[in-house]
Amino acid sequence: MPKGSRYERELVDLLWKSGFAAVRVAGSGSSSHPAPDVIAGRGKTLFAIEVKYSSGERIYLGKEEVNDLLSFSNRMGAKPLIGVRFRGTEWRFLDPSLLKERRNTYLIEREEVIENGIRIQEIL
Amino acid sequence: MPKGSRYERELVDLLWKSGFAAVRVAGSGSSSHPAPDVIAGRGKTLFAIEVKYSSGERIYLGKEEVNDLLSFSNRMGAKPLIGVRFRGTEWRFLDPSLLKERRNTYLIEREEVIENGIRIQEIL
Repeated sequence: MPKGSRYERELVDLLWKSGFAAVRVAGSGSSSHPAPDVIAGRGKTLFAIEVKYSSGERIYLGKEEVNDLLSFSNRMGAKPLIGVRFRGTEWRFLDPSLLKERRNTYLIEREEVIENGIRIQEIL
Repeated sequence: MPKGSRYERELVDLLWKSGFAAVRVAGSGSSSHPAPDVIAGRGKTLFAIEVKYSSGERIYLGKEEVNDLLSFSNRMGAKPLIGVRFRGTEWRFLDPSLLKERRNTYLIEREEVIENGIRIQEIL
């Protein structure tokens, strides 16, 4: 099992506890169609979520990864979100349109996520 | 790879060709939360789909499988569908509330699906 799926499972469990129905997507990194890591819905709100974990201080997201998330979400009728957890912290959520671009990648920094990331209670 | 996933992939491809964004759900038969096989959305319409293939004349669906699909769909805000393909025929879709019950299972018959099943062009 790929390492990343442990954190996807953790996030899916958290979403269920928070009132959502949530699933991990099969082969999200390898499918011939763009796909997020997790899909979660509650009532009329649907999220397509790219999941990132880091034991360090920064996460870099490729431009294509973000573009795929946006185009998939637009087509499905879902809101795109980045679900982020840095080691020792709780899950936070980021609106991908607010990510900082740096040389063709998007940079996510631990301190900023802890300060400004959206909490699970606030995403609806 | 489980045999069923071949037909899930085939259906996901068909849904993409028909304008949907669609994904296979990871571990849909084994997860600790109820989950459909496929999720597909287009604009404001979202479907949670249980996928069935048969080379025979009949498909039996367990009552619990159908109940899980209904409760998942209700929680996610999706419409539940059974996606069915009998060997040599095209995909058809069934509203689970119209399934015929027989001794705690639901029976899906080849001839009836070919006559009355919803075509992909009609599901929106």
